[in-house]
Amino acid sequence: MSSHASGPLGRIERVRELMDERGYDAVIIRDEANLRWLTGAEGVFDYTGELPHAAFITASNTFLHTDSRYYNSFIEHLPADSPWVLDMEVIGIPRWAAERARDAKCRVVAVEDTMELSFYDGLVRGLEDLSIGALLPQMHGDLRLMRAVKDEEEIALMRRAQAITDAAFAHMLEFIRPGLTEKQIKLELENFMFENGADGLAFGSIVAAGPNAANPHAIPSDRPVQKGEFVLMDYGARYHDYDSDMTRTVAVGEPSAKMREIYDLVQRTHEECAKAVYAGVDGNEIHELSRKIIGDAGYGEYYGHGLGHGVGIDIHELPNFGRTHNTVGEGSVVTIEPGVYLPGEFGVRLEDYGLVTAQGFVPFTQSPHDLQVIDC
Amino acid sequence: MSSHASGPLGRIERVRELMDERGYDAVIIRDEANLRWLTGAEGVFDYTGELPHAAFITASNTFLHTDSRYYNSFIEHLPADSPWVLDMEVIGIPRWAAERARDAKCRVVAVEDTMELSFYDGLVRGLEDLSIGALLPQMHGDLRLMRAVKDEEEIALMRRAQAITDAAFAHMLEFIRPGLTEKQIKLELENFMFENGADGLAFGSIVAAGPNAANPHAIPSDRPVQKGEFVLMDYGARYHDYDSDMTRTVAVGEPSAKMREIYDLVQRTHEECAKAVYAGVDGNEIHELSRKIIGDAGYGEYYGHGLGHGVGIDIHELPNFGRTHNTVGEGSVVTIEPGVYLPGEFGVRLEDYGLVTAQGFVPFTQSPHDLQVIDC
Repeated sequence: MSSHASGPLGRIERVRELMDERGYDAVIIRDEANLRWLTGAEGVFDYTGELPHAAFITASNTFLHTDSRYYNSFIEHLPADSPWVLDMEVIGIPRWAAERARDAKCRVVAVEDTMELSFYDGLVRGLEDLSIGALLPQMHGDLRLMRAVKDEEEIALMRRAQAITDAAFAHMLEFIRPGLTEKQIKLELENFMFENGADGLAFGSIVAAGPNAANPHAIPSDRPVQKGEFVLMDYGARYHDYDSDMTRTVAVGEPSAKMREIYDLVQRTHEECAKAVYAGVDGNEIHELSRKIIGDAGYGEYYGHGLGHGVGIDIHELPNFGRTHNTVGEGSVVTIEPGVYLPGEFGVRLEDYGLVTAQGFVPFTQSPHDLQVIDC
Repeated sequence: MSSHASGPLGRIERVRELMDERGYDAVIIRDEANLRWLTGAEGVFDYTGELPHAAFITASNTFLHTDSRYYNSFIEHLPADSPWVLDMEVIGIPRWAAERARDAKCRVVAVEDTMELSFYDGLVRGLEDLSIGALLPQMHGDLRLMRAVKDEEEIALMRRAQAITDAAFAHMLEFIRPGLTEKQIKLELENFMFENGADGLAFGSIVAAGPNAANPHAIPSDRPVQKGEFVLMDYGARYHDYDSDMTRTVAVGEPSAKMREIYDLVQRTHEECAKAVYAGVDGNEIHELSRKIIGDAGYGEYYGHGLGHGVGIDIHELPNFGRTHNTVGEGSVVTIEPGVYLPGEFGVRLEDYGLVTAQGFVPFTQSPHDLQVIDC
């Protein structure tokens, strides 16, 4: 857990500590999830890929550039006593950033390594036009690393997001029956979340039955669910800009012995991995543990994805339980989601998400792990 | 309209003509909307910002890199007889692209200027690791320019998307009444679209009543709508990965004389601008026309955004009706959406979207322009 105050002020402080450590005079932020995190402006960023905003942070100032469409929404949705100074000069954001660098006499201006080439080039030109020499070092995921450690405000929002998601699962156990299509089930699932407080979806829900569930990233179809099939649902609610993420696989009528065998394997893998997680562990080690359990059971080639990932404002954040080494810090919020996918037959995935503490993994997800069989 | 075949094959041909003209041996594509456009793979890309895919196009080959989660979905959702060769080697996409460049003996490999700095740097390193010298020129919006001109397949999908959106408007005229909150109206609007064939939302819908409608990018709240207020709805359906976009402002009970005056001004601006649009016009000229009409009426300072924008797979595409000069080509699909926003009072926006032809603007939107007054 971060030692800083919860909320945007503590987050800006963390960025300034990095600036101090690295000798940055300023940082420029374009990524909307980073901007949401640093401003606390709820609901204003719309993540359409248009990137109409930018932040320029120095040791003593926080400037936010936006345009007239968003200006009042920021005024209304920035937290009380916010330090952000809004600007909407119509001069293009690279030029605006170059002028901020000039005015604050910055020599080292760090940028995100996710920045678009065209914006970076515009910034270089903007500085040249003002005859300013400045170094533009890239931050390699530093803000994403900071965002991996959630504060209390974020954890509270994610628990709320998951409560909606759990309620939706209980509802779906009553709703699902043979003859409904994947798309109909998806519609009901998403409507339920919207009617129960979701501001949006964490991502387009996956609802996959029978052989379609063997696609880890299945696209819901018009095929009706049949008795004796698994239905896999991978979905989440968005709540005050924070995501939840959960997968359950349910049986519609009695499953076959093979379906039970695979379900039990996935459940065991999930639970053993969850038990092995604590603050400071290497994400790759837990991923390898899941590979070992599924591999030892003879299904290694049917499990190709990572075991899990961080979640927050973005649905995929740090840390990862995957192929790369990375430390799973205290205060991370992560998914654990092993799966086995038998092409042409069926697939099973079981996913919780929750908080990483020094004592272990504390799931936000409250829905049962045991196979739920829908009577029909 | 493009002279090429409708669909992905014609689009790949257009990219290859550009390659030929510019002397590119290959292009690398990362942007998911560009990838959707070039592959025709419906529903597979999820636009979460994770960027798990990449394309490498040469004069004779089209390679698509993905990972195991998406592999089968591509197999199932690529159009029949697709030229795309799928690859999911686990070596990191920059390295994969560098190997493709080596194998095809490419010397000039073009990249999108929206590419992330980190990916570009990875590509440079990947090429160096293989001791390959290659130029990496940036394409400055070339694919976005191509995508601005829609083919028949795209136009058909967008007409379908708008039909859902128009039906939702007719439904909302029956649904809206005083006492409902902005959020309740938004929920009904979005549910209606999902239940009537939308695969998703084009963007988070804006529903804003009374003074909140004076924020062009308003965030729906829990405030109940009152008799005598305007309700502004800006929303769209997503259909087979294509967006619609529409805004209507309706009066809940009799509006004041000032509300009528502003509505009439916005409607007149919309209709005069729509009449002035034809293939080949400069987008800035039409934007300036809208500024002149609203400015002459004395409300210029209450209209700060652009008149409109292209729409397609992304909700904001080229061309623009805004501050910059750009040609509005035949086959473009654009919005026309003037607005007037009186802080603390109310706001009005009227938006259609449709096709630009040599003869003029052909709206897909079929809902009436005249002010709709909800009886209450």
